[in-house]
Amino acid sequence: MHHHKTTPDSPIGIFDSGVGGLTVVRAIQAILPAERIIYFGDTARVPYGSKSQVTIRKYAQDDTAILMRYHPKMIIVACNTVSALALDIVRKTSGSIPVIGVLEAGAELAVSMSKGKRIGVIGTQATVCSNAYACAINELDPDIEVHSKACPLFVPLAEEGFTDHPAARLIAEEYLREFDGRHIDTLVLGCTHYPILRGMIEKTIDPGIRIIDSAEAVARRAKELLKDSGMLNESTATATPHLLVSDLPQKFIMLYRLFMGAEMPDVELIDV
Amino acid sequence: MHHHKTTPDSPIGIFDSGVGGLTVVRAIQAILPAERIIYFGDTARVPYGSKSQVTIRKYAQDDTAILMRYHPKMIIVACNTVSALALDIVRKTSGSIPVIGVLEAGAELAVSMSKGKRIGVIGTQATVCSNAYACAINELDPDIEVHSKACPLFVPLAEEGFTDHPAARLIAEEYLREFDGRHIDTLVLGCTHYPILRGMIEKTIDPGIRIIDSAEAVARRAKELLKDSGMLNESTATATPHLLVSDLPQKFIMLYRLFMGAEMPDVELIDV
Repeated sequence: MHHHKTTPDSPIGIFDSGVGGLTVVRAIQAILPAERIIYFGDTARVPYGSKSQVTIRKYAQDDTAILMRYHPKMIIVACNTVSALALDIVRKTSGSIPVIGVLEAGAELAVSMSKGKRIGVIGTQATVCSNAYACAINELDPDIEVHSKACPLFVPLAEEGFTDHPAARLIAEEYLREFDGRHIDTLVLGCTHYPILRGMIEKTIDPGIRIIDSAEAVARRAKELLKDSGMLNESTATATPHLLVSDLPQKFIMLYRLFMGAEMPDVELIDV
Repeated sequence: MHHHKTTPDSPIGIFDSGVGGLTVVRAIQAILPAERIIYFGDTARVPYGSKSQVTIRKYAQDDTAILMRYHPKMIIVACNTVSALALDIVRKTSGSIPVIGVLEAGAELAVSMSKGKRIGVIGTQATVCSNAYACAINELDPDIEVHSKACPLFVPLAEEGFTDHPAARLIAEEYLREFDGRHIDTLVLGCTHYPILRGMIEKTIDPGIRIIDSAEAVARRAKELLKDSGMLNESTATATPHLLVSDLPQKFIMLYRLFMGAEMPDVELIDV
C-alpha cells in the first residue's frame, strides 16, 4: 500500500477528533523541537467520545488516510477514544510505520509510577465505558486495581476557558469524589483536553496523588521510539506544526491560543 | 422535484443536530397529539453550533433530503443554528411544503410579548454570533432593543443532567449577569436544549422577566399553519414519533428519557 521510504526528516503525523490533541503537539515540541509535525484535527466531526464504535472506527480510518498523504515516519493517535476503540484500524491503514496511542503510553507510564498499585483514570464517557485503560494497565500488571470515572463536563469547561472557575471546581469535586477512600496513588488524565484543567484537578485531589498526563507520556514514548530506530530529526531548527482541520470555526483560533500558548499558524482545510 | 401530494394524514418532519429538537417534538405532542411526527436527529454530526456556515448549510440540505423521503406535509427546523444560517436551503430542498424554524417562531412570540421592547436572547455561540434573533426581532419591530448572550456550557450541563446543580447555578448566574441593568422584560431560550434548564434559569433571573421557550413557540405556529391550510390531522389516536438518527450512542437512550419524560420507541439508523 504505502511504499514511500521514510527518513529522519519525515514528519510525525498526529490526529485527534478536534483541538484536544494539540496538548500532544505541545508536549512533542517541548522535548523534540526539531520534529516536523502534521496535525489533523477532525473539527467537522468532533466529538468522537459520544459516538458509536462503528462510527469511531470509520473516522479513525479516514483520519489515518489523510495523514498518510504526507508520508509520516510515525503516527500518534492523540485521541483517547480512537486509541481505545480503533488502534488496530489505524495500524492497518498506515502499513508498516509505527503507531502509538495516547492510551497505551499513559497506561505504561502510570504502571511504572504506581507504587501502591492503585490507579485512577478520568476520561470521556466513551473512553471510560470502553474500559480500555483498565485493560491496558492490567495487561502490563494484573495486580493493579483501576478505578475509572467519566467526567463529561471537563471538555466543555476547558473549551470555555473555565479552567479555575468556582463552578468548574464544584464539578471537579463532584466527579473526583469517586476516588475518596480508593487510596489511589496515581491519576491518569485520560483525555487530551484535561491537561488544560490540570491545575484545578491538582487542587481538588489529595496532594499525594501523582498525575499522569497522557500527552506528556506519548511524547516521551515517541522520543524513545525514534531514538531506537535512528529516526530522530537531528536538525537544530525549530519546526512549526502543519495544521489540517476538517472545519474551521472561529472558536478554533481562540482554542489554539488556549491549548498552545501561541498564535495559530496557517491552517489547511481538508474535506472528510 | 417533489410532486408527492400531502394530506392531513401526512407526517410533520422535524430535524435537529441531535437530541435538543426533542423538546419541539414534546411541545407538538402536547398541543397536537394526533399528528404523526418523523424526527431526524443528526447525532453523528452533532453539534452544529460550533461549525462553520458552509458546513452547517451542507448538513441542513442533507437533513431536509432525509425527511423528504417520508413526504411530510410540513418541515420544522428544530435547530436554532440551521434556522439562523440555512433556512433558505431547507426551503429550496423541500420544494413547496411549508417550512418553519424555531428561531422565527421564538422571535415572533417574543415580539408579541415584550411590552417594554427590551428582549434578551440566550443561545449557542453560533446562534448568538449570527445575530439572527436580533435580525428576526428587529424585522418585526425595529424599536425593540435586543441583548444576546452565548451560553456554551448550558448544552453539556443539560445533557449531563445537571439541571439544578450548584455548579450549574453558578454558571447560569455568570452568564445571565450579562442582563443586569439591561431592563429586559422577555428572555428567549434560543436553543432547544435550554427548556431542560428552564427551572434553574427562572430562579436565576428577575422574576418579572417572561421566558419564551422557542420549542413551544414553534409548536403553536405549526398548529396555526396546519389549521389555516386545512391540514390538521383529525384522528383521535395518539401517534408515537418515528425516530431517525445518524448514530446511536448509548447516551441517546438516557437523553431521550430526560428530554421526553418517556421511554424511547424503536429508532432507525440513517447513513449521512
